[in-house]
Amino acid sequence: MAVVKGNVMVAQSGGPTAVINASVCGAIQEAMMHNHIFDEIYGAEGGIWGLMNDKLFDIRKEDPAVIDNLKHTPGAALGSIRYKLKTKADYEAVIHALKKYNIRYFFYAGGNDSMDTADKVNKLAIEMGYDLVCIGIPKTVDNDLPFTDHCPGYPSAAKYLATMVAETDIDQRDLPTTPIVIVEAMGRNAGWLAGAGALANRNDYPGQGPHLVYLPEVDFHIADFVADVAAVYKEHGRAMIVVSEGIHTAAGKLIGESGKLDAFGHAQLGGCANTLKEILDREIGVKSRVVLPASAQRAGAHCASLTDVNEAWGCGKRAVELAVAGVSGVMVQMVRQPGPEYKIAFESIELSRVANVENKVPRSMINEKGNNVTEEFIQYARPLIEGQPNLTFKDGLPWYSTLAKHFIK
Amino acid sequence: MAVVKGNVMVAQSGGPTAVINASVCGAIQEAMMHNHIFDEIYGAEGGIWGLMNDKLFDIRKEDPAVIDNLKHTPGAALGSIRYKLKTKADYEAVIHALKKYNIRYFFYAGGNDSMDTADKVNKLAIEMGYDLVCIGIPKTVDNDLPFTDHCPGYPSAAKYLATMVAETDIDQRDLPTTPIVIVEAMGRNAGWLAGAGALANRNDYPGQGPHLVYLPEVDFHIADFVADVAAVYKEHGRAMIVVSEGIHTAAGKLIGESGKLDAFGHAQLGGCANTLKEILDREIGVKSRVVLPASAQRAGAHCASLTDVNEAWGCGKRAVELAVAGVSGVMVQMVRQPGPEYKIAFESIELSRVANVENKVPRSMINEKGNNVTEEFIQYARPLIEGQPNLTFKDGLPWYSTLAKHFIK
Repeated sequence: MAVVKGNVMVAQSGGPTAVINASVCGAIQEAMMHNHIFDEIYGAEGGIWGLMNDKLFDIRKEDPAVIDNLKHTPGAALGSIRYKLKTKADYEAVIHALKKYNIRYFFYAGGNDSMDTADKVNKLAIEMGYDLVCIGIPKTVDNDLPFTDHCPGYPSAAKYLATMVAETDIDQRDLPTTPIVIVEAMGRNAGWLAGAGALANRNDYPGQGPHLVYLPEVDFHIADFVADVAAVYKEHGRAMIVVSEGIHTAAGKLIGESGKLDAFGHAQLGGCANTLKEILDREIGVKSRVVLPASAQRAGAHCASLTDVNEAWGCGKRAVELAVAGVSGVMVQMVRQPGPEYKIAFESIELSRVANVENKVPRSMINEKGNNVTEEFIQYARPLIEGQPNLTFKDGLPWYSTLAKHFIK
Repeated sequence: MAVVKGNVMVAQSGGPTAVINASVCGAIQEAMMHNHIFDEIYGAEGGIWGLMNDKLFDIRKEDPAVIDNLKHTPGAALGSIRYKLKTKADYEAVIHALKKYNIRYFFYAGGNDSMDTADKVNKLAIEMGYDLVCIGIPKTVDNDLPFTDHCPGYPSAAKYLATMVAETDIDQRDLPTTPIVIVEAMGRNAGWLAGAGALANRNDYPGQGPHLVYLPEVDFHIADFVADVAAVYKEHGRAMIVVSEGIHTAAGKLIGESGKLDAFGHAQLGGCANTLKEILDREIGVKSRVVLPASAQRAGAHCASLTDVNEAWGCGKRAVELAVAGVSGVMVQMVRQPGPEYKIAFESIELSRVANVENKVPRSMINEKGNNVTEEFIQYARPLIEGQPNLTFKDGLPWYSTLAKHFIK
């Protein structure tokens, strides 16, 4: 595609992570280097919705130190949303806004749904004959985007969870008065994050946990689970268990479904760890405890993986480099290089191939009994959590960036 | 008391913390400097129970690097227990073991119950005419020991919780699709830890949370709570709430009581945050989420306060210095010095005055409505969470010490 001079829009969408802002930072810092092509650089508050609703702000007016510290800031500093383009009115609003603000470069950081949005915007622009460079930047703690070795955001959430499991395991080892602990990890359909709990076990001491790890890729059988826990408890006098929130029966019923409906009539999730605790209280009858990090596991920037921070930043930078090179309609892709040293190359893959495809944990990374991961999983995940970021602190807590957001009138 | 040559016993008891091992490290490293008085240095596995059951091991045979890294290791590396001395047989077993192992120096790190144990051992030795120096080292994330400015372990748990609240608040701010988040803090009778959640709010951005903080020192009224949350939600479009696990009605009924009995016939706690979530789902009807760090908050050494690590180590060291100076029957006490700079002096207080007394959050540190802390609380707690420890990492996670434990035959 011929390189056109015009304005840039950067946006993010879907669940925040510890490093999605690092990607935004990488894109912005790289864009600032190409003033010969890029006029204004806009942030859209609330992803595509922000574009459609005139919620654009001027990135060039932000404090460069605040932009730089986005590398280490959790959340989604531009403002995020969950919104799927559906109606004709939606598409008209998008194309209207792109023209109105002369946006020629569209950078969208997000997961599966966001790549679908980016793909739709890209196709729409082509169809309308509107010159637009459209690049997706991968992000998701679920790690379920296809064609990329892993997704920025996953390594930091994995490190947060593994650290939590490692520390809680030592706590339980040293005072096993609550001999059953169940840690519930995010991941509705893919068990990458729950699997990362297993990284806590480095054979530092006999009987180190976690002892059992359940992923949603394998059907969950309650009777087998109770037998597994009873066996571990018999052997170690305690059991450290990690479960994915998405585990389900062979019939597809979520373990965490409470059987109740919420105010909107949707099936309510009571939490699978709570359900499992009730089952174990009844079937085994020793004290048990649930640890539920919930959204804290995707926001744990204080415990981010430096590898992840650098890669997320690199994905953002690479997105802009691709755009400058005239590439469009792709998502930045991370390809693990062969050889003994962990190394990633930043390549690209067509958005249309990525959109709406879910990458789950392969069966070979889960053991035969379906109650832990295999060494193949560990080999895959271990390098991702290496390195610690050097944070700035204020009043004893990490200092995180907040954008000033000078909105365009 | 005259200084007698003999053996040393170091033990810990009650709930682990991120820094109780730092206290043990301080005591051991100081004891190693006084070989002219101290012969053997024993660790007791499982506190006083370990002494009574011949579970003593030789600290001098441990790797000095492993001992040194106890400063940054969570859990209770010697092994902890919850055990109260009660029967005549208990007391006889204690005095028998003290004589058998010629233990003349008894260092006990723990909270209220542990200081009671130390006090009982001290009185027993005096009664039996057995020369024993007995010193308590304060520890508890609950921060409820009296006569000390604060307790080692509390600052790190406070920092962990405040970090979690700060990060989760940003996550919610940037994607408020789950507009109510309830973080449940430990603290059955004292709200120091829940109160620390308020440290997350440093006025970094408009409407920063937490917006509501509930401590067990004030009776909890469900109708007021629902009204508080509704008002915050109306103002900010979201509500970040921190509650202590021990909140209760005016009649003393715990909010977290499920109404069910466990296998042993004890009232079962369903968790107060879960109960509050159910109430809000019904009364307000927007999406809500529980964050339950549970034991992770007392084990979060990766996020410890360096102030706490140093003070915990200092308390252990001071305990041995007091013993060498012939002092006995006391707990190390931290006294905050006057002046604008935060500074602590290590003094001592009689065990008999400390045992079984609970230090709760004073009413002046809680606001009039009982739904947040006051500036007085912030001023008290803020300096405690300053500083970050420099951890050693292995495979992307902190490396924590495990003792070899060469048991005495």
